[in-house]
Amino acid sequence: MRPLARQVLALVGILLVTFAVAGISGASTSGAVRSWYPTIAKPTWNPPDWVFGPTWTVLYAMMAVAAWLVWRQTGWGTALALFGIQLALNAAWSPLFFGLHRIDLALADIVLLWVAIVATTVAFWKVTPVAGGLFVPYLAWVSFATVLNFTIWRMNR
Amino acid sequence: MRPLARQVLALVGILLVTFAVAGISGASTSGAVRSWYPTIAKPTWNPPDWVFGPTWTVLYAMMAVAAWLVWRQTGWGTALALFGIQLALNAAWSPLFFGLHRIDLALADIVLLWVAIVATTVAFWKVTPVAGGLFVPYLAWVSFATVLNFTIWRMNR
Repeated sequence: MRPLARQVLALVGILLVTFAVAGISGASTSGAVRSWYPTIAKPTWNPPDWVFGPTWTVLYAMMAVAAWLVWRQTGWGTALALFGIQLALNAAWSPLFFGLHRIDLALADIVLLWVAIVATTVAFWKVTPVAGGLFVPYLAWVSFATVLNFTIWRMNR
Repeated sequence: MRPLARQVLALVGILLVTFAVAGISGASTSGAVRSWYPTIAKPTWNPPDWVFGPTWTVLYAMMAVAAWLVWRQTGWGTALALFGIQLALNAAWSPLFFGLHRIDLALADIVLLWVAIVATTVAFWKVTPVAGGLFVPYLAWVSFATVLNFTIWRMNR
């Protein structure tokens, strides 16, 4: 276990980086949800818009907590490098989909993201199972989002 | 330590409640920041508006993590009852200040909030020092906010 002040600072740092990604996603989503997104074809089982904000807020917080638990056990290492890769792929999705309207590139991105989340979940689980467990709802949500992105891509070709 | 699924669910629950309070604060702040708040007297050392959102987002996440660490050690008990009290007092502040423009009632509320945060920090520290440590930035920020609220109250009597 690490000194108390460093533990607090590490959580602050991880939260700032993770919520910065949440902010990028939120900023590239907000305009598009009101203009472009309602005009494209979507499946009937597409969730209502208001579901996404609260869901992502909780998922971003949970992934930050998972990363912090891993940092407490091992410091910065391979598992947290995988975390950084999945976070970067996560950050890219909203700008691709909502910003550039590139449903195809967003699909490629989210498939890579899904793989990176699986790898991070396994690596976190090996460090401490609860950190892996905190990634499971995120993995489930991105699995659903990948199917949704694929369906929207097929419907709008 | 508790079963993994319950640990994940407990964090989800604590995050949902805490971010619901963040949502209440955000909702009652947003309109007022654009209309009423710029018209009242404020000290020169009042931080710019954009500082408050990111700061509160990180502080809410940290208090949720602290509550979850305490729950992992002791389950629901006195320390988390204190957490609930401070969260309720926190939820009341923005509606009083920004919603009702009652700087005086907001000041009374934030003084009680400050006392409740001190009590929660001590109770959390006794359960696990890192949970108390995660409350220290929150206590520091609310100490500053109390002085700011007091100053604004004096300047606008």
